[in-house]
Amino acid sequence: MAQFGIPYLLVDARNHHLFQPLLYQVATGFLEAPAVAHPLRSLLKGGRFLLAQVEAVDLKKRHLLLTGGVKCPYQYLVVATGSKPHHLGVPGVTAHTYPLKTLEDALRIRYALLSCLEEAAHKRVPFRVLVVGGGPTGVELAGALAEFLRHVLPRDYPEVPGARVTLLEAGERLLPSFNLGLSRYALRALEHLGVEVRLEAKVAHVSAGWVRLQGGDFVAGDLILWAVGVKGKAPLGLPVDPKGRVPTDPFLRLPGHPEVYVVGDLNGLPWPQLAPVALQQGRHAALNLVRAMQGKEPLPFHYRDRGQLAVIGRHRAVAQMGRLGFYGLPAWLLWALVHLAGLVGFRNRLLVLLDWAYTYFFREPGVRILLQGLAPGGPLHENSLILPVPPRNGPEEPS
Amino acid sequence: MAQFGIPYLLVDARNHHLFQPLLYQVATGFLEAPAVAHPLRSLLKGGRFLLAQVEAVDLKKRHLLLTGGVKCPYQYLVVATGSKPHHLGVPGVTAHTYPLKTLEDALRIRYALLSCLEEAAHKRVPFRVLVVGGGPTGVELAGALAEFLRHVLPRDYPEVPGARVTLLEAGERLLPSFNLGLSRYALRALEHLGVEVRLEAKVAHVSAGWVRLQGGDFVAGDLILWAVGVKGKAPLGLPVDPKGRVPTDPFLRLPGHPEVYVVGDLNGLPWPQLAPVALQQGRHAALNLVRAMQGKEPLPFHYRDRGQLAVIGRHRAVAQMGRLGFYGLPAWLLWALVHLAGLVGFRNRLLVLLDWAYTYFFREPGVRILLQGLAPGGPLHENSLILPVPPRNGPEEPS
Repeated sequence: MAQFGIPYLLVDARNHHLFQPLLYQVATGFLEAPAVAHPLRSLLKGGRFLLAQVEAVDLKKRHLLLTGGVKCPYQYLVVATGSKPHHLGVPGVTAHTYPLKTLEDALRIRYALLSCLEEAAHKRVPFRVLVVGGGPTGVELAGALAEFLRHVLPRDYPEVPGARVTLLEAGERLLPSFNLGLSRYALRALEHLGVEVRLEAKVAHVSAGWVRLQGGDFVAGDLILWAVGVKGKAPLGLPVDPKGRVPTDPFLRLPGHPEVYVVGDLNGLPWPQLAPVALQQGRHAALNLVRAMQGKEPLPFHYRDRGQLAVIGRHRAVAQMGRLGFYGLPAWLLWALVHLAGLVGFRNRLLVLLDWAYTYFFREPGVRILLQGLAPGGPLHENSLILPVPPRNGPEEPS
Repeated sequence: MAQFGIPYLLVDARNHHLFQPLLYQVATGFLEAPAVAHPLRSLLKGGRFLLAQVEAVDLKKRHLLLTGGVKCPYQYLVVATGSKPHHLGVPGVTAHTYPLKTLEDALRIRYALLSCLEEAAHKRVPFRVLVVGGGPTGVELAGALAEFLRHVLPRDYPEVPGARVTLLEAGERLLPSFNLGLSRYALRALEHLGVEVRLEAKVAHVSAGWVRLQGGDFVAGDLILWAVGVKGKAPLGLPVDPKGRVPTDPFLRLPGHPEVYVVGDLNGLPWPQLAPVALQQGRHAALNLVRAMQGKEPLPFHYRDRGQLAVIGRHRAVAQMGRLGFYGLPAWLLWALVHLAGLVGFRNRLLVLLDWAYTYFFREPGVRILLQGLAPGGPLHENSLILPVPPRNGPEEPS
């Protein structure tokens, strides 16, 4: 907005921009949290920032209602509150699994991973981790966990007699948005890393320490990660579809409210909930907003699919660009380049490059610090011998 | 111990070694937390590790009592539990000030610093920070805070009309363990950075938002850091002096219990509570322990003072080596070299070097991410507009 001389206010409940595609590396100790986040204030060029939670949008009176009762008027509004993990109606998900959507989620997973390993070492029992969901997040998490355990376990946890990563996918193949050959490659690559992949494994129920599949099988997991299902995270006052997303016209505007734009995962148009879509919608909403202020007609949004990537451990990745699919080292190099370029800020790029180089040469994830008293989700129980695994999701979601 | 073929068990309530001398840079966002910590398990060479809190030592039965009721027998014991911040009898310290001793303390300070700045921006009021204590920790903290504010405030918080760092020292000069010329240089260097230094300012009472000095003056502070006073952190069952330290014989052994060694800040011998003393005592206790197992007489401990260093912002530091004192750029370069060499692990050295280079060239502290829901000291109050400043010290200390 700044380059058009339009004053703006950015309201966010967090003080940082988050580069979500590398979040799984924070969760598994390959990157430190600050490397994938960037302070929003230093990204503002001419705008203002307010650290606050938006509770509701009053479309009639044209103001936001912030937590604490403060009202914040607007002339134009762009809503980009994204999506949040969803339990898909499976009982026990909220209480017993860890999602991966925010930086706090990633640190919670890292904390749980390290705590569970200490506990397994103390009890001299194997460590089992379950990843639910065979999309890019699940595949990348499972691969990174397998690499973490392969490097760290024999050297640092000789008392732990073994470890197993199991990936559960409800459908008949991994990475369903990629072509069939790439799905098969991803399966082979994960199995090469020692991940047990179970296809057509629908989770029916989750409890502490296990999941029950449809069909009746039980699968044990000391740590259960939930990498499937999201729901729109709309402020109150906006109309939402059953998936929690806000329907808009092709110009990304709320029907009946041309002054309100909705972009990213929250937008209910039939585009995939991916970072490239969100980036393009953000730019497009800005374009239409400027056109509206200049009295011009808006332009409809079209997604330009430049392809998708997923990585499965060291040197292995899949890339799909239109009909062209490729895999292995070339896809991995492309993945690394695209993700370094996508990071916000020179410092973060340097940090990530350094961390990757470190892991590459020393074959160990560098970030394995347990912060006691900072157990995410609540203060630490001082009375247990082993650090307790923190609560997973916080309180049960309302719906 | 490993090089002598002696099996050992390392028990620690945390899973990491902490390089305390750079903690103030974590607190002020110049370094990320993982850079000054190293996983203990990867430092063990032939020993074992147990993540547990030691509650008490049973000297008669020769075992440790761990939290949770587990007993852990020993043949020889080395106690190195260090020291913790102490309120020195000043009312309000525990409730209203932040200490800087652990990694969690540093993150708590960083969180409070960023939250206070958001609050000052929201209210458009100046931001005032108080540092109590003119020893190395206080001087280094005040200098780093002044640099943080000088770089970050004008660019990222234009709504904040001003900021002030005040350093309160009870004695008549800063850095009393250095020579007089270096104390004066430190004072000038801090004032050059814009720090207001008040000497002979004894804190009589602390409350939310201000301290009262002996003599009746009130000094306002939105954030109050407590960088003075420590107390030994001995497990129950060990005899302690009034400062909480454990008296030993010159061989670092507990009188009457030659199988128990006490080293570091916890040792009650009249050496200063500094990292070099602790390092030398650790090596010396190992030497005496091996000699005891070989049936040889123990050797008395003598501290070899190789000098001390303190840094005051970019390019400014003081160094004292015996009677020789020097300051400015040479002292700063020596400080940087000594601290890089002292860090544990190649990765941490690289990270710190990178962060310092970044700050040097870009003149901004790189780590300014607020982790919501991870508010140290407790979960975040979801109902306030601005992120609340977390509780400072946890519950009031018993003594």
